[in-house]
Amino acid sequence: MHYSFARRMANLTASEIREILKVTARPEVISFAGGLPAPELFPIEEIKRVNRIVLDEDGKNALQYSTTEGYDPLRDWAAARMNQRLGTELARENILMVHGSQQALDLAGKVFLDEGDVVLCESPTYLAAISAFKAYGANFVEVPTDSMGMRMDALEEILKRTDRVKLIYVIPDFQNPTGRTWSLERRRQLAEITARHEVMVLEDNPYGELRYEGDFLPAVKSFDQAGNVLCMGTFSKIFCPGYRIGWVAGDPAVIGKLVLVKQCTDLQCNTMAQRDIAKYLELYDIDEHIAKIREVYRHRRDLAYRIMMEEFPKSVSFEKPHGGLFMWVVLPEKVNARDVLEKCLQRNVAFVPGGSFFPNGGHENTFRINFSNMPEERIVEGLKLMGQVLREYID
Amino acid sequence: MHYSFARRMANLTASEIREILKVTARPEVISFAGGLPAPELFPIEEIKRVNRIVLDEDGKNALQYSTTEGYDPLRDWAAARMNQRLGTELARENILMVHGSQQALDLAGKVFLDEGDVVLCESPTYLAAISAFKAYGANFVEVPTDSMGMRMDALEEILKRTDRVKLIYVIPDFQNPTGRTWSLERRRQLAEITARHEVMVLEDNPYGELRYEGDFLPAVKSFDQAGNVLCMGTFSKIFCPGYRIGWVAGDPAVIGKLVLVKQCTDLQCNTMAQRDIAKYLELYDIDEHIAKIREVYRHRRDLAYRIMMEEFPKSVSFEKPHGGLFMWVVLPEKVNARDVLEKCLQRNVAFVPGGSFFPNGGHENTFRINFSNMPEERIVEGLKLMGQVLREYID
Repeated sequence: MHYSFARRMANLTASEIREILKVTARPEVISFAGGLPAPELFPIEEIKRVNRIVLDEDGKNALQYSTTEGYDPLRDWAAARMNQRLGTELARENILMVHGSQQALDLAGKVFLDEGDVVLCESPTYLAAISAFKAYGANFVEVPTDSMGMRMDALEEILKRTDRVKLIYVIPDFQNPTGRTWSLERRRQLAEITARHEVMVLEDNPYGELRYEGDFLPAVKSFDQAGNVLCMGTFSKIFCPGYRIGWVAGDPAVIGKLVLVKQCTDLQCNTMAQRDIAKYLELYDIDEHIAKIREVYRHRRDLAYRIMMEEFPKSVSFEKPHGGLFMWVVLPEKVNARDVLEKCLQRNVAFVPGGSFFPNGGHENTFRINFSNMPEERIVEGLKLMGQVLREYID
Repeated sequence: MHYSFARRMANLTASEIREILKVTARPEVISFAGGLPAPELFPIEEIKRVNRIVLDEDGKNALQYSTTEGYDPLRDWAAARMNQRLGTELARENILMVHGSQQALDLAGKVFLDEGDVVLCESPTYLAAISAFKAYGANFVEVPTDSMGMRMDALEEILKRTDRVKLIYVIPDFQNPTGRTWSLERRRQLAEITARHEVMVLEDNPYGELRYEGDFLPAVKSFDQAGNVLCMGTFSKIFCPGYRIGWVAGDPAVIGKLVLVKQCTDLQCNTMAQRDIAKYLELYDIDEHIAKIREVYRHRRDLAYRIMMEEFPKSVSFEKPHGGLFMWVVLPEKVNARDVLEKCLQRNVAFVPGGSFFPNGGHENTFRINFSNMPEERIVEGLKLMGQVLREYID
């Protein structure tokens, strides 16, 4: 059989992260790869209880087909939470539940992108967003980014000279992979500029709740007057990722289109998972739970940063993020992080090389460290080993 | 804001079924629409127990991210079950877990279809498959179908004169919407012809386990020598649909591509749901459970058929299916089933007009009846009301 695959398949290769994750499934590996939450913080006992209650109270509906839009109490919660945290003014009609924010990227791609359309993104950006849009034949233009976020002068410039820009994908809070957070001003400007150019913004916000210092900032979505911003959220980092439940918020006209494509993609989200989460939110104080997560991750961030300062060569640079799960490391220009990874893997330490986070390639002297998943003694051990490799390699 | 949607959005309209389902959510409505399983048969107590055990034994992994391919014990079960029931020879490597078989349709479309490619299907066929492929810009050619399944002479003819045929979508067991089952010979022929023409077959099998009379027949997949048949399965009809867990089986080369696109679509299936189902399969006898479902549905089919014979005008024709969830009704040519539906809805009875099941339109004098979801007294009441409307309308 000669398989005749669609043209788009030429754009897709296995996600490097998920391939590395297969290696890191071995228990002896100290992994700073992936973006895994700390499983010891999952509310296992609480989930057992809410699952029992949901099945007792309304098992027949919890296990049945349901609406594509999602479970209404959960849609209400998502809207209220965003209004409280991100300064938006959303209601149930603005929310579609999805199988993880990854699905929102896929659905948005399906609704907006024709082959050859252009997606703008931060440089670097989230790797699986790149693949999601590449599957619709998108081309990427990376917008220069500094410590305040995407540079608005560069964005205006690119918008002026580039045809067929359909989407701008951004992660303003504790960005993946850099850990950086956009300033308030940049958020406001992005909403203003994109409304003027009639370009859709996809604002990804998986880590926003995980702030370890400073004040919460309003979302780009909160400055959206034109209805051109979609903002995503997820339970993966504040509850657990195994449930694959997230949401996307936007203008009802766009949500309606997303519902249409979700219908023909997988009909609806897992009913039981949505009910479990809604019941948890009803019976427990998720703020208390998130405070616990924040405390543990803040401590891990501080610890990782301290060890890196002590153990990494001076020619290696990195910043301390204000939240989220990641630190971004820049090596001297000639060093290839993939080579460093190979040496590290020999000592059972893993991370993700930075090159894959640039849709148009290059920047092989960078890598990403996740500090949320490993217990503290393994963070220390792993980063010390990494420091050793780096010193051997660089000095 | 002027939204500039992708071209494909012009092909997609709201699923009529899911819009009707919104109406039928009202408890007073007797619904023969949808393809809902009977919720009173969901193993609620068993699910409560397996959920508790999974969380006790391995909660941290059950709630964490996991592999895109799916939970290995569940992949093993799916392979073994198909081998036992459908005469295939599959192993774990042949199986990808998906969010309901609907997702397998979407992923297959993504892997194989470029805009303008052609999908062949039975006439009529499953409505949500039409939308799934339309989302990739596919054109449809309906292959004439008789009581033995797709007509192979017509298929050969169409394959000869049609360019860019990429997929053939079929439901050989208790087809949706007609309830018909393909003969053994047609299955064998389909595998042979498509291998010769190097065209992929998508064999959908959501109802195969629900046989009420006669012998189980081997799947088209069991005759696949070339590796050009993908066969889907689901827990929606034998366990519960709210979990959104199904699978697709195929040649590892194709499964690998499906894994790639699932990665960028939603990363992976719900870990917890996969674990729950696997634990259920380990601790309980699903054959016993399926036997119970079969018994109830067989009885409902017999009852519905009897009432329809008694109450429907003689000019209305329908067949008794050997399994599955649906009966197909053909009205006199001039009668439009949508008008009948309107009258029925006024009396709180619902079904799905048949026109939507024909990708290229027409056949408005047909409709589909689902007999699995309503308890018996409501089946009787609803079909009597429907008979009344039909008599008023036709005679």
